[in-house]
Amino acid sequence: MTQSRLDKLNASLRVSGLDSIILNPGPTLTYLTGLHFHLMERPVVMLFAKDQIPAIVIPELEMQKVADLPYKLQVFSYPENPAEWDGVFRKAVQALGLDGRKIGVDPRQLRLLEFRHVKNGAPEADFPDASDILAQLRLRKDQAEVDAMRRAVQIAQDALEATLPLIKIGMTEKELAGELVTQLFKHGSESEMPFTPIVSAGPNSANPHASPTERKLQTGDLLVVDWGAAFNGYISDLTRTFAVGEVDEEYQKIHKIVQEANAAGRAAANPGVPCANVDKAARDVIEKAGYGNYFTHRTGHGIGMEGHEEPYMRGDNMQLLEPGMAFTVEPGIYLPGRNGVRIEDNMVVTETGAESLSDMPREMRVVG
Amino acid sequence: MTQSRLDKLNASLRVSGLDSIILNPGPTLTYLTGLHFHLMERPVVMLFAKDQIPAIVIPELEMQKVADLPYKLQVFSYPENPAEWDGVFRKAVQALGLDGRKIGVDPRQLRLLEFRHVKNGAPEADFPDASDILAQLRLRKDQAEVDAMRRAVQIAQDALEATLPLIKIGMTEKELAGELVTQLFKHGSESEMPFTPIVSAGPNSANPHASPTERKLQTGDLLVVDWGAAFNGYISDLTRTFAVGEVDEEYQKIHKIVQEANAAGRAAANPGVPCANVDKAARDVIEKAGYGNYFTHRTGHGIGMEGHEEPYMRGDNMQLLEPGMAFTVEPGIYLPGRNGVRIEDNMVVTETGAESLSDMPREMRVVG
Repeated sequence: MTQSRLDKLNASLRVSGLDSIILNPGPTLTYLTGLHFHLMERPVVMLFAKDQIPAIVIPELEMQKVADLPYKLQVFSYPENPAEWDGVFRKAVQALGLDGRKIGVDPRQLRLLEFRHVKNGAPEADFPDASDILAQLRLRKDQAEVDAMRRAVQIAQDALEATLPLIKIGMTEKELAGELVTQLFKHGSESEMPFTPIVSAGPNSANPHASPTERKLQTGDLLVVDWGAAFNGYISDLTRTFAVGEVDEEYQKIHKIVQEANAAGRAAANPGVPCANVDKAARDVIEKAGYGNYFTHRTGHGIGMEGHEEPYMRGDNMQLLEPGMAFTVEPGIYLPGRNGVRIEDNMVVTETGAESLSDMPREMRVVG
Repeated sequence: MTQSRLDKLNASLRVSGLDSIILNPGPTLTYLTGLHFHLMERPVVMLFAKDQIPAIVIPELEMQKVADLPYKLQVFSYPENPAEWDGVFRKAVQALGLDGRKIGVDPRQLRLLEFRHVKNGAPEADFPDASDILAQLRLRKDQAEVDAMRRAVQIAQDALEATLPLIKIGMTEKELAGELVTQLFKHGSESEMPFTPIVSAGPNSANPHASPTERKLQTGDLLVVDWGAAFNGYISDLTRTFAVGEVDEEYQKIHKIVQEANAAGRAAANPGVPCANVDKAARDVIEKAGYGNYFTHRTGHGIGMEGHEEPYMRGDNMQLLEPGMAFTVEPGIYLPGRNGVRIEDNMVVTETGAESLSDMPREMRVVG
């Protein structure tokens, strides 16, 4: 499979006007090469030049990782002393004849560390943004990718169902998050988690990006759980909102509105439809209910190897949905200082519509 | 505490020849400001200019995080549409008068994404490498930092001790890693793990940076467990090597050699001594035993908020150890295709020597 992905990249390079693309460790490198490195103080860069055997610059320490690959690779390794790294990068750049050429980069992933080493080896090169080309590569998921995502969703749902009976009033958000992570691993999530679960209750739930705190669950809180699992390098990213004991009528109301907005966003997802329509469908429900000012973020983001990738469900994104595209639908209402609601599902566009990989009940369940 | 850290940065700026430093989300930003953001497709940058109130550029979505800070901050927020981001960055740069000035960067952390937005706002500025200044800020740990690290070590040790009785022959590396992660959370590790544990046995243990696989533990394997916990934003990073049942005599021998090398490295750590001496002390033991070619990495790295920070225990690093510096001592012997050993402790330099925060038995214990 990797060779066909490398071929796809080469075909993209041929039509792009770029001479090459460089990648540092991250999902796109793994997608194309099957290689996995951590981002660390030792730079790792793979250089893909049009119609050439790719080259990689790595620490000697990592040589084993490139020992038995199903494709050809030119390996340039460097010793521990950073003073020698620039010279090794220069050799790799020269082997591909890249100085003075157009070398595409991925600004969301590439660090100045890697960029400057490559630039020192190719001082006359241009480094245009290749994000769009790279996003295209991973934009339409194949069956194996959807299967992995489906499993990541199932693991996440099973883990949260196993956690719900353990929730008690007086438990801290952090304790609950720890329990959920434990269950995620028990149910088969990979040890490399996609992200730390958000477990936020009461006023904290009004912050869409809260981290779990020492605050204790109280009767009357809304409880937002935004969590996911990883399977075969693919992730899930779901949210459900619960009532801790009995909650105010307004909170029940906003939960119902968000549930409707989530359903409307999911229903709007169809092949040939712009991403903006998904956002609009969800947002219209919340605006008509008078809470438009409290839905402060876009309706969703692409999902696959990462939690934030193309396509984005944003009001200004006219990109058309195509079969295989995968993304979240996650409208919310956040009442600052009080409580918040978000309901998030993971969708895959099909030939005739779109499927939600997640099916955990969306209505407000009572816990604690 | 944050104001005093910001004052320390300002004092560094005054002597550095830099006009400012920019930081994106990461440990140094958290150290200086107490703020925590995830790296995502929306850039977050804080700009620290000499003798000025710092400025931050953030998505509107994140405004709550900067609402009640114990220090003054100029906030520049941008909406969801990326086309508007450059303009907001330009305003922040102009507010601090930074175009044409020297703006220090952290190349190991800053992405091209953030860099290019700042550069578009300050096209005439220079962006020198400020890594050394930034590393200095976090290099000497204070008592609260050492206390957090000590707790992170204790959590990690307790978690592995609780995991050892669960190890069975036939269990996969991944299963064991999952069990260890579960125990890390049960024992109080923060939900944001410092890194995924390395659990590698048999031939996999000969790869210093292995990821857990589906390979099953077999009698005769060496089992390397490289794991850590997080507490209050500080981490531990330990390694112990176990025998799965009875193992070959040579493996017992290399374990003993590595244990002696670890002890020698720890003993060499004293205030006023170059980092190189720690590396040499450990390496000498392994070289004298005839395994020098199989110890393929440096002896250690700094530790604190990150698993890889200054000071590095490398043969060419003449930096002198000072009280408060914290680092790992982790010699290893790796026999390719066969088995490997590593033993890693977390050290803090004191006024009179150095203390190992970790005290879990280092001799080869039998599991399975």
